[in-house]
Amino acid sequence: MELIDGKKINAEVKAEIAKEVEEMVANGMKRPNLAVILVGDDGASSTYVGSKVKTCHDVGFESTDLKYPETVTEQEILDKIEEINNDSQIDGLIVQLPLPKHISEDKIIEAIDYKKDVDGFHPVNTGRMAMGLPAYLPATPAGIVELFRRYNIDTEGKNCVVLGRSNIVGTPMSLLMSRKAKPGNATVTICHSRSKNLNEICAQADILIVAIGQCEFVTADMVKEGAVVVDVGMHRVKSDKTKSGWKLKGDVKFDEVAEKCSYITPVPGGVGPMTIISLLKNTLLAAQGKIYK
Amino acid sequence: MELIDGKKINAEVKAEIAKEVEEMVANGMKRPNLAVILVGDDGASSTYVGSKVKTCHDVGFESTDLKYPETVTEQEILDKIEEINNDSQIDGLIVQLPLPKHISEDKIIEAIDYKKDVDGFHPVNTGRMAMGLPAYLPATPAGIVELFRRYNIDTEGKNCVVLGRSNIVGTPMSLLMSRKAKPGNATVTICHSRSKNLNEICAQADILIVAIGQCEFVTADMVKEGAVVVDVGMHRVKSDKTKSGWKLKGDVKFDEVAEKCSYITPVPGGVGPMTIISLLKNTLLAAQGKIYK
Repeated sequence: MELIDGKKINAEVKAEIAKEVEEMVANGMKRPNLAVILVGDDGASSTYVGSKVKTCHDVGFESTDLKYPETVTEQEILDKIEEINNDSQIDGLIVQLPLPKHISEDKIIEAIDYKKDVDGFHPVNTGRMAMGLPAYLPATPAGIVELFRRYNIDTEGKNCVVLGRSNIVGTPMSLLMSRKAKPGNATVTICHSRSKNLNEICAQADILIVAIGQCEFVTADMVKEGAVVVDVGMHRVKSDKTKSGWKLKGDVKFDEVAEKCSYITPVPGGVGPMTIISLLKNTLLAAQGKIYK
Repeated sequence: MELIDGKKINAEVKAEIAKEVEEMVANGMKRPNLAVILVGDDGASSTYVGSKVKTCHDVGFESTDLKYPETVTEQEILDKIEEINNDSQIDGLIVQLPLPKHISEDKIIEAIDYKKDVDGFHPVNTGRMAMGLPAYLPATPAGIVELFRRYNIDTEGKNCVVLGRSNIVGTPMSLLMSRKAKPGNATVTICHSRSKNLNEICAQADILIVAIGQCEFVTADMVKEGAVVVDVGMHRVKSDKTKSGWKLKGDVKFDEVAEKCSYITPVPGGVGPMTIISLLKNTLLAAQGKIYK
């Protein structure tokens, strides 16, 4: 069994991006600039945004931080998005979710110019991805594909089972794995809360991608000997074995599943560190005009 | 075994749409108007366009036929699309494919205002469909979903296998079958040319949707007893048993597969007659402003 080290790959890709940015600057181009809109002062959201901004700076990007109180109107945010859409100094724009209830997330996402939608949430990017056209790919699925690429995990013709059909993980994951590409070309089965015989279906998977949002849902009997298991889950559970009194667990019962796998992602340190990578890559591609002119 | 009668459902839905149009007109609304762009004089394309226009008239729609010689430039078509995008009298616009090689199909499709894209080919409609948002659905997958609806075929929790991953049939079909909807909520496996153990996978399907483009590819040993089989294929093969010397066949070896099925679509008369239905429905929805304002 080999552990897939998301932290190590994260560092590798970041170093590559940083190098590319310095080359851009040496060639007289401006640094990529990512704008981040944060509404309210939810602790988790602030932490995520802080971490994204810091990582941007690590690789030599500039950032434009825009913070609004919980009481901001939808129209104010829409106006700011319009302004950024037209600002040639800014390459990418993300709005941290969730938003307060009086602001429509769908409306906000669709207001962002798809050419600056480096989260890959706009319907144009989702649609182009589904159609196999160049697009900004969503963070978690693209991060997982990058892990397969870096570990030379062969996906062609493999039986890949995706647990979960969310718009941000399961559904795009199934699209990326089934398309004509490398990694890709897998036979993909997408399962969800209404699926029957889940155990049986999972046990046939050469590659099992779990994004079902239930702590330690996947047990050893659901995993085929030699399978590749990717765990997207992240749950904070009480523990008397850690100083903090907490421990992070995934959607997979790691202790009993790991020994059956050829490869497995741990939690933490597997998929988690990869989600930022797609944001960086998309922003770099935006600054270079490589997806859209 | 029950034969799924696409011709009968086609007539039913058309009658419903015609009734709705007359109600719209009685209420002082204008008739839905579909614009159709045809380039060149390929016989098959002309026949398809002629049939679409005739069906529009059958249900009380108006149509705007725009024909161009093979030598028309890409820019001329783009200019016309721009004009139609801004013409409030026209509700829907389709461009018959394929186009001559000097015209980019992707560019043409993306130039159509997605609010008038009643073929459901624009990335915004593909993306919104993938995200479960209201959208114009592509013809063949939407037609198949309509057949399931009209025949009360239960899809929830069923094992659905889709053979083929094309942008116009296989991929959107897999999205519609896996989404949270009725019909929908199936566990979907999407297979393609790189898939292995196809026979085994198909033999596990409660619902088998075949869009692989190979004549009589699916044989009886690939089908589970009691399965629902949907055949998207259409092949003209020589026959000494018909007056014309030709016979239409599908991707499924009908004669040996039919007896194992609970339901099966014949070729012709199954999926074929349903593909026009989605175009009519989308154009009606466009005229009513029910998907986009």
